[in-house]
Formats: sequence, C-alpha cells, structure tokens
Amino acid sequence: MSVLLVGEGREYLRERGETLETDLGVLEVPEDAQPGDTLETHLGTAFEVRALRGPDLFEHFERTGAPMMPRDVGLIVGHTGVADGDRLLDVGTGTGVLAAYVGRMGASVVTYEQDDDFADVARENMALAGVSEAVDVRTGDATEHAEELRDEDPFDVLTLDTADAAALVEHAPDLLADGGFLAVYSPFVESSKAVVETAREVGLSEIETLETIQREMDFDDRGSRPSTAGVGHTGYLTFARLV
Amino acid sequence: MSVLLVGEGREYLRERGETLETDLGVLEVPEDAQPGDTLETHLGTAFEVRALRGPDLFEHFERTGAPMMPRDVGLIVGHTGVADGDRLLDVGTGTGVLAAYVGRMGASVVTYEQDDDFADVARENMALAGVSEAVDVRTGDATEHAEELRDEDPFDVLTLDTADAAALVEHAPDLLADGGFLAVYSPFVESSKAVVETAREVGLSEIETLETIQREMDFDDRGSRPSTAGVGHTGYLTFARLV
Amino acid sequence: MSVLLVGEGREYLRERGETLETDLGVLEVPEDAQPGDTLETHLGTAFEVRALRGPDLFEHFERTGAPMMPRDVGLIVGHTGVADGDRLLDVGTGTGVLAAYVGRMGASVVTYEQDDDFADVARENMALAGVSEAVDVRTGDATEHAEELRDEDPFDVLTLDTADAAALVEHAPDLLADGGFLAVYSPFVESSKAVVETAREVGLSEIETLETIQREMDFDDRGSRPSTAGVGHTGYLTFARLV
Amino acid sequence: MSVLLVGEGREYLRERGETLETDLGVLEVPEDAQPGDTLETHLGTAFEVRALRGPDLFEHFERTGAPMMPRDVGLIVGHTGVADGDRLLDVGTGTGVLAAYVGRMGASVVTYEQDDDFADVARENMALAGVSEAVDVRTGDATEHAEELRDEDPFDVLTLDTADAAALVEHAPDLLADGGFLAVYSPFVESSKAVVETAREVGLSEIETLETIQREMDFDDRGSRPSTAGVGHTGYLTFARLV
Repeated sequence: MSVLLVGEGREYLRERGETLETDLGVLEVPEDAQPGDTLETHLGTAFEVRALRGPDLFEHFERTGAPMMPRDVGLIVGHTGVADGDRLLDVGTGTGVLAAYVGRMGASVVTYEQDDDFADVARENMALAGVSEAVDVRTGDATEHAEELRDEDPFDVLTLDTADAAALVEHAPDLLADGGFLAVYSPFVESSKAVVETAREVGLSEIETLETIQREMDFDDRGSRPSTAGVGHTGYLTFARLV
Repeated sequence: MSVLLVGEGREYLRERGETLETDLGVLEVPEDAQPGDTLETHLGTAFEVRALRGPDLFEHFERTGAPMMPRDVGLIVGHTGVADGDRLLDVGTGTGVLAAYVGRMGASVVTYEQDDDFADVARENMALAGVSEAVDVRTGDATEHAEELRDEDPFDVLTLDTADAAALVEHAPDLLADGGFLAVYSPFVESSKAVVETAREVGLSEIETLETIQREMDFDDRGSRPSTAGVGHTGYLTFARLV
Repeated sequence: MSVLLVGEGREYLRERGETLETDLGVLEVPEDAQPGDTLETHLGTAFEVRALRGPDLFEHFERTGAPMMPRDVGLIVGHTGVADGDRLLDVGTGTGVLAAYVGRMGASVVTYEQDDDFADVARENMALAGVSEAVDVRTGDATEHAEELRDEDPFDVLTLDTADAAALVEHAPDLLADGGFLAVYSPFVESSKAVVETAREVGLSEIETLETIQREMDFDDRGSRPSTAGVGHTGYLTFARLV
Repeated sequence: MSVLLVGEGREYLRERGETLETDLGVLEVPEDAQPGDTLETHLGTAFEVRALRGPDLFEHFERTGAPMMPRDVGLIVGHTGVADGDRLLDVGTGTGVLAAYVGRMGASVVTYEQDDDFADVARENMALAGVSEAVDVRTGDATEHAEELRDEDPFDVLTLDTADAAALVEHAPDLLADGGFLAVYSPFVESSKAVVETAREVGLSEIETLETIQREMDFDDRGSRPSTAGVGHTGYLTFARLV
C-alpha cells in the first residue's frame, strides 16, 4: 500500500520501497514504514508518514477528465453495499477514482477504459493508490467483450460511467450474480431514461434513478444558512438489481 | 459470513453452519455454502444461496430506531474514504447499519451504544451480518470512556450519531490518526453548528457541513420528471479532518 | 369584488349583492359590505366580512384538475413582472387560479380552455373571485386561433400550461408586445426542452428553464431542520422574452 | 408611468414628460408616448418606446444592497395574494424592488427604510418605476412607529426584510386586517426561528417557513440536465396569517 509523505507543507504519495526525490532531499520509503513514523531525507528534512485515504486520491491522481466526486462514489457504495471480497465490473474507468475507492475496500475490480492513454494513466493511478493487484485496468470497449465477460465469474456489482451505458445494461443479467447491483452514473436525463428502459426490458428489479443535490451549510456570527454558492448538478445515478 | 436463503418468495439471513427451521422444512446451511448453490429442506423445498449485500441489512436487521439510510452511509464512506484495514470509532450504534456496512468493507469497528437492550440487538445484528469479529459493540457512553480510548491505537475515522456529538468532538484530536476523518450525522441545524464550533475550537481542518437532497426521477410514457413525491430531510453531515 | 363571509367556523365566498342561504339562515350581502363589517343572517348568526385574498381561491374554487400552486403562480408573476394594466394571454385555463390571481392584480386576461365543461367551471370561478370582467374565458384551442389573436392588441405576457405548449410558442413573437414575456409551465423535461428549442428557433431572448424545489422548515424544541416530509416536483417553468 | 427607451443597443428608463439627454441626442418623452411608438432624438437617433416590466427594475434601479430576487418577490406575491387595491406595510425597503413590484400591481405601500441615504435612493427608484404615488417611502425604524401605524387603516400584507423582524412580528395582529398575511424574508435559520416563535406567541395562524432551491436546466445537443452551476441560497420565507 502507498503512504503519504507530509512535510514542509507538501504532500507526496509513494509506494513503500519507492524513493522520493525532491529539492528537499532524497528519501527511500522503507517497506515497513508505518503511519505516524517520521522519516528524514538525506538533507535532513523530516517527512511524516500518513495513511492514504480515499479523499487524498483527488489530490494525487493524474486526471484524464473530471473524476467522479466523493459524494457519487459514496452513493454508489451505499446503494450497492460494496464490500470486501466483492467482484466489480466497472466500465468507463476515467481517472479511476471509483475503481481505487472500491479496490481499497477489498473488492477486486475489472475496469474498462476505451482510450489507450487514459488506461495507462489509470494504471499508474492504481499503483499510486496501492491497488494494482485489486484493480485490473483493461483497454477496450466492454460491450464488445460482453461475451467473454459472461464466461468469467459473475460480478457482484456492475458500475457504468459511459455515454452508451444502455448498451451494456442489456448484458447485465448475464454478468451479475444473483442479488447483484447495477449502478449507472449519467449526467443527462435522456441517457438515464435509456438506461431505465433497458433495465426494464431485460428484467432487472428495484430500478430507480436518483438525483442528488448537495449544499454546504455556513455557520458564522450572523447565523446559520445554506451556502449562497450553490452546488451544481453532477450526474443522475440509476440503480437496479438482479433478483 | 452470512448468506441469504431465497425460496418460495421468502428470504432468510443465516450464518453458515446455522439451521433454518420454518414451515417449509429444516435446512442446515453448510459451512461451505456458496452463492449460486441450491439447498433443499428436509421437506424438499429449494432455497437458493445468495450473497448478503449491504442494502439487504435494511430488510433483515432488527431495528431499535430509524436506521441510517443507504445514502448517508454512502456519503460518510465517500467523504472519509473508509477502506479495508481501517480502524473506526462509531458512537451511537443504533440499529448498527453503519457499523455493519464498514465492517463488511474490512474495517474494524469499535461502536458505543448507551442503551443496554439496543446494544444487545446491535450485537445480534452484527452476527446476522457476519461481522461480529470486525465490530465490537460496547455498551456505554463513549464520552465517559474518552480517556481509555485515547490509549488505544488511533482511529482512522470517527463517526458520531448522537445528540451530544459536540462533547465527543472535543476529544477527536486525541482519538484520530493523523489524516483521519470525523463524520457527524445530525438531524438539526443547532447540533450541527455546535459540532462545527467545537471542531474549530479543537483545531480540526477541512470542516464542512453538507445537506443532501435526494429525489427520485420518474420516467414514463408522458415524459421524464423528478418524482412528485418528495424525499425528505434525513440529517446534516459534518466532516472534518485532523491534519 | 367578492368577499368572504366567515362565521361559526365556516367560510363562504360570495359576490356583493348575492344572497347566502345556509342552515344558519339567509343573509343578503350588501353592495357596500366592507371587510371588517359584521353581518347577520335572518336567524341571527353573525358573519364577519373578510377581503378575499389569492390563497383563498384554492379553498373556494371548484377544481377541474390540480390547480397551479401558489409558488408557481408567484414565480410566473415574479419573473414576468405582471402588473396593473397588463394584457395577458393565458392558454390552458384549468381551474383558473393563475388567471384569477393576475386578474386581481389589475391585468386583463384572455384565457383559453379546450374543454367546454372546464371552461364553464372556470367562468364560475372567475365570478367567485370577482374578476369576470378582467378575465375572458374562451373555449377552444388557442393555437387554432393564433391568427385572430395576432390581430388583437399585443399581449404583455403569454402564459402556457398545456401539453403542446411548443406549438403556441411558435406564434409568441407575433402575439407578444416588445419586451413582453413568455412563461411556460410544464411537468416534464421533454416538453420543456421542446419549448426551449422552439423559443430559440423563433428568436426569443433570455430563455431559461427553472426548476424549483421548495421545502418547509420545522422548528421545535429539539431544533431546526428541513421537514422530513419532502415537497415534490410540480413543474418546470420556462421563461423567454421578446426583445 | 415610466417607459423604457430602447435604441442603439442601449436602454433608458424615463418618466413620460422627462427629457433623455445622451451623446445620441436629446429626446423629450411625450406625455402620451405609447409602447410601440418610435421617437427620435434631435440628432435623428431612433428610440423605441417599450413598457417597463418588473424584471427591468433590476437593470435600472440604483442598488443600496443586494435587491430581493424575482423569485422571492414572486413567492411573496404568490403566497400572500397581493392584489390591486391592497394596502401593504413593507419594512426594510432596501433597493425597493419588492415595493415597486407590488406598487405596479395596484397596491398602495407604506415602506420603512432606516438609512436616510438609502431611503432617498429608494424614493428615486420609485419615481423611476412610476410608482411614487403608490409607494410612500418613510425614513425610520418601523418598530418605533408601531403605535402610530396601528391607528392607520389595517394592512392586507405585512412584508419584513430586516434583521430584527421578530420585533415587528409582535405587532402584526394589530397591524393586519383580518385574513391578512405576514411575509418575512430572512437569510438565516436563527432569525427565521425567532420569527416563527413570535408569530406563534402572538397567535398568528398558518405559520410556515419555506426554503426555495431554484436551478436552471441546460438543454443542449448532448442532453438535458440541471445546470452544473448551482444556484445558491437567498433567504427563507416565513408566512403567517391573521385569522
């Protein structure tokens, strides 16, 4: 697993065994580095070792687009019950935040990214997050591989974040374990509707599309109120279950 | 771990090794029962073995109050990055849905419930969810045990769902690992404000209180729209971090 | 103008000069009855005269469908600036709440209702509200009368609450005065989108579709919070202007 | 009434009889200028006469603070049913948008502004809007004048937009006509709560505090969705009625 190295107001994410080289000196991260340890560079600068947490990924991942927000990652996890030992099929890797989050929960993830370069970045991000073994980033169009995927063990959760999610929803009954969940993230009404209609056609149950509006509360001397800076729409989340 | 036994339109949650006795007959759940297996009672009724998922807990847990909703469980997980190997301190166990969810993600949880009977129910719920080893349900007022808790290993996440959460937030810097998160669920503005003020006083960072409004979308022949049945308020979530 | 007669826990809406006949006795409402006056039936029961206000219409109008809510009436008025002396064209009269509200503000209204019986009820409702002279309820499909309507004086505001609103939006530039507003109420995304696209095609300006979520706040001894009973979706409001 | 003079991409608000002097020339606005007329400056530049509408006030009023938004003006009107002939008491004039809107609906308004300079600006704004006769801008603290106000004719609607609104709510039963409405705009939870508690104490009915979240919908080639730019909180609106 990776650790955060925090010192002099900076923060670096490194795997144990790696070397941190900066203008503050060189520091080899011991294989047994533990959160709370203090390490020193060869120039004597102290870095504290801190455990990596999910929200740190937003700071340290290289982005290949707007990553899924913590709230949407959380809602997917909450509504599908992602757990240690789960098998996930994730389509539309992107920056890989969702895959890394669930990988860190002990789930094993197969994730598809169509863009070659984005897939490479995602693989580097998985290494950074220390979940390279848990997350298998595959390059390609998952829909084209649907037949092969059916021959693998069934998936407990199928997460889709692609423009043509409905095309893959057709295969959901063949890909999901009994009781497994589908979760589709879509910014638009039309694509959410297409997903819902396909989910109905292929016989999935407990279909619902949720829209989430999140606002920050301000507490100051004058009083309490929702922030005057509104929080905008991210995406609709459609859930369904194979029962 | 427990499994769901699904047959004749009914659903039972049992640990492996337990016996299911109903009017449909007696069925001993093999220690090696796997999702997808079909088991038969002594009367010949077939039950399919299905893996337990987080959302199933809402159906099978005995309730000692309104359980935290999947969306709020998810938001806490998303904003704090709960992961396999984490140590959580959870105060205000209640029905135990949050503890069970994060226990199923591989986190080890110490959770406090003040009410003796509720704590007993929570322990039974943890057994049902197959997370008895991961979740230590303690009876008592965590604030009174704050001194002892400081002597334990630091916690990665501190989750509070009690009326007097602010009293425990005072101890957060002593209980949390560096980089660890505080998450407080509170239905009311006033108690959220008290939590924020205390978090500021004790020097926590990245303090924010979020309000979440979730609505279902309806898709039918006439068109698409948010549901005319609104989804009500559950609680404010306040997050803070020790950095 | 009509007045409310309030007594014995009951409330009646009558025009001045009309007679109220109930089991509490007969009472003729004087032409000069003023709010604050106390009137007596021939049996001696006292009724207080109260001025009719917009929100009273929801209690006293006969309904031919779900009436537009006070919030949506208000938003239309706020975003279009309905004022004394305005000429409004209102299509899809329904119960007539919107027409009566703006008639009470001194606007003169031409309103179209396709259903004969509904139009009759709307006319009775306008009489009840004391705005029969201000509001001309016409039976028919306004789109079919678009040519004639163009020959009337231009309208300051065009309000549409019909399934095929887009068809009439095509005529908006010919019906509206310069600087006049279009306001379309639509429950669905698809019809709102059709209205927006037509408004763009015919060259209207300042086009925007607003979605309004309204919640009640609860204040009690435990604290303050948004109501746990959510307020559902009513409709999208699309505004545009001829400039 | 004032009219808008629109030409060369500019827009001026002038009363009839006034003179417009700009670099485009001098133009005297005839007393009988009608919307749709075209006027010429002495330099031959054409200006079209357009009727002033409520939303134009936001462009042309001099601001002495953040004016109340069209949505909040509309909600107040919708929930209280402001109509031609109403008497309003408005406390906390500010820029005067609310007073001008309801003045334009035929209501007569007494409005209090504590700040001398702001009151002067408000008076100029009322002249601009052509409602100087309908709106009486008084300088001072309305609460101090509560006794005198009780001796005037009762008010149909009492609108408050001041930090200490609760102090005036105490007088509401003495100021309002029977059936009249109170409407209080407040950005904060605490002041809204104080208003509600006072309204309960003095025996007002139908007390409710509403929070309104308004979002714009985006329709483009990719699909339909709520705007990613959220709309922030403005204020809570508390309504109550004297019955």
